[in-house]
Amino acid sequence: MANPDNIGMIYPAAIPVSCLRTNSHRNRRNARCGGNPRVHEILRFLAILLYSGKQMTNQLTPENILKTGMAFWPAKTLLSAVELGVFTRLAQGSLSLDALAEQAGLHPRGARDFLDALVALGFLDREGDRYSNTSETDLFLDRNKPSYIGGILEMANRRLYPIWSDLTQALLTGKPQNEIRTGEADLFEKLYADPAGLKEFLAAMTGVSRAANMTIARAFPWHGYHTFVDVGTAQGDLAVQIALANSHLRGMGYDRPEVGPIFEQYAQTANVADRVSFVPGNFFEEDLPQADVVLMGHILHDWDLSTKKMLTRKAFDALPAGGAFVVYESLIDDDRSQNAFGLMMSLNMLIETPGGFDFTGADCMAWMKEAGFSNTRVEPLVGTDSMVIGIK
Amino acid sequence: MANPDNIGMIYPAAIPVSCLRTNSHRNRRNARCGGNPRVHEILRFLAILLYSGKQMTNQLTPENILKTGMAFWPAKTLLSAVELGVFTRLAQGSLSLDALAEQAGLHPRGARDFLDALVALGFLDREGDRYSNTSETDLFLDRNKPSYIGGILEMANRRLYPIWSDLTQALLTGKPQNEIRTGEADLFEKLYADPAGLKEFLAAMTGVSRAANMTIARAFPWHGYHTFVDVGTAQGDLAVQIALANSHLRGMGYDRPEVGPIFEQYAQTANVADRVSFVPGNFFEEDLPQADVVLMGHILHDWDLSTKKMLTRKAFDALPAGGAFVVYESLIDDDRSQNAFGLMMSLNMLIETPGGFDFTGADCMAWMKEAGFSNTRVEPLVGTDSMVIGIK
Repeated sequence: MANPDNIGMIYPAAIPVSCLRTNSHRNRRNARCGGNPRVHEILRFLAILLYSGKQMTNQLTPENILKTGMAFWPAKTLLSAVELGVFTRLAQGSLSLDALAEQAGLHPRGARDFLDALVALGFLDREGDRYSNTSETDLFLDRNKPSYIGGILEMANRRLYPIWSDLTQALLTGKPQNEIRTGEADLFEKLYADPAGLKEFLAAMTGVSRAANMTIARAFPWHGYHTFVDVGTAQGDLAVQIALANSHLRGMGYDRPEVGPIFEQYAQTANVADRVSFVPGNFFEEDLPQADVVLMGHILHDWDLSTKKMLTRKAFDALPAGGAFVVYESLIDDDRSQNAFGLMMSLNMLIETPGGFDFTGADCMAWMKEAGFSNTRVEPLVGTDSMVIGIK
Repeated sequence: MANPDNIGMIYPAAIPVSCLRTNSHRNRRNARCGGNPRVHEILRFLAILLYSGKQMTNQLTPENILKTGMAFWPAKTLLSAVELGVFTRLAQGSLSLDALAEQAGLHPRGARDFLDALVALGFLDREGDRYSNTSETDLFLDRNKPSYIGGILEMANRRLYPIWSDLTQALLTGKPQNEIRTGEADLFEKLYADPAGLKEFLAAMTGVSRAANMTIARAFPWHGYHTFVDVGTAQGDLAVQIALANSHLRGMGYDRPEVGPIFEQYAQTANVADRVSFVPGNFFEEDLPQADVVLMGHILHDWDLSTKKMLTRKAFDALPAGGAFVVYESLIDDDRSQNAFGLMMSLNMLIETPGGFDFTGADCMAWMKEAGFSNTRVEPLVGTDSMVIGIK
């Protein structure tokens, strides 16, 4: 049995929450009084409880901490599987270990562990020696299906995973940790100068936002409007989805000239090229095209506060009275305590841009009010995406 | 409304599982017959279902895929918080945003997003403008408490996160992606040559295995034995926990000589130095010390198959008749379909070592039988750790 003098050495595998709450309060009281938390006393108390052998509910374990801290393992395992085309190959039918390893170029040493890890993570099924896609991975991670959302994961794998390695440095300096750090061109300059990289980036943007695009196309009260412009339209999926769902509308996709061919091909394949056209431009240098509805999806978060406000003013100027400005993003909740993804997206902007940050619906409505919009509201879309609507 | 010719463009936000199963079977049938999966037909069918507007249960969404693929964000956010000592600072009492940012050296640009992300992830509490630890982070991530498990996360942050960036390369080549790739010394040679790094590594090993150590100290039938040796003992926490819980036992920690001072200090602090001693050695060159019980925790997975078998034989040789060999690891389940952590630990060995891999209880029992052990069994410990016991 443990010597009571030694219990400071003992790590309790699971500790009742009820006593920890008490201790936590005691800690804070001590701190307020300027005293040190009585760590040893607390641990002694806990160890006695632990050694009493009672089974208690609501016990503290380090599992969630360890699981989250090591979550880059399942992330990178899935990202490598997307990179190696595992799900695209299996969409043609199940494959044996050897056949799949050969097709994907996997060295025998790690192949079985890798594929079985994907089984254990729920991304592959295995029957006997044959691997197959799950329903989800077959639908969403087969590159040959229009429902493919792997673009964002390809970008996460190639670009975001490595630069997030420098998160601490970004937090300490407030400076981006991508090409900007080494004095190379700005992220977007570089992206637009590389056609292959640009196409991957645009497809990634489509993959991550299509569910929200379809919701906007159906949920927004389009019957009251005739024209729209999607600012920073990228591949044009939002414009296409709006046109598909609302045959009375004509729309524009507005973006830098390099995007034009990619946008126009996309609109033609969707059979909406007669109602949806591309307008080249640069929102830093020009006014926005006039339309009944101005949309900006995942644009404002790229920029610093003064640019956010400038774009909000330009949207106001492009609208007629009664026109609508629709901003959609993975909004941070107003209390900044729930939407972890939105908050981490803002950390991603810290790493990727000189001044960008994500924001709450309340933040965005305040900028809209400041620009002159009379009515503003927030409406949820899907997942963590919401739209902020301002009526002129 | 969507033109039926265009539905291939539409990504269904959520699709009933029931129809996907059917389609998945159809895909495989087609593939077996040499035909291509009829993707467009399937998507048309799905889009019709989707557009029927019915709310269905069991719908497919990409959420789990996206959440897992982006899980390096919460992982790195937590790892940076450990690195910056956020939880250790808050263990002294709650702090305001400005005070905490100043103490941790956080630049104002990202500080609030970072700390609020930790709130949203459940690792900090916030009341008004003041941040405080949760019960879990206060217990497990305060460096000044013996219950600190952040050592493994410090190593994950400094070492594992960056080298996992090269998982794809490891899978394609079967070769490690750490210092070994650049022709530097082997991982362990390098570790043992760097006292500061060694201490961090050993503390990390203690943090990750203490819960299992305590379980072994209590759950194994120690009453039948008098002596034990812990092979690859590191800081010595397993030996210490066994001695604390079983006053009739005398034990040895066996490891390379560099570990000696760290081990002895640890045993003294725990008041068990009279019953637990350090034996320096190298298990490649020498026989193991004789004892009633030989333990190896997280050792076998570092090595290739022939080394695993050699160590199992040496354990057999070190035991008297009736003696026990106890191997404990995050065992892969025998079906290799459940313990994702064990399988990814094996991928970690792929990245870190020339031949290491993790294994199932059945694998380990087979090696024990081959070495001459008469009885073998597997017993669960805590979390994903289990022990394999072989009786001579």
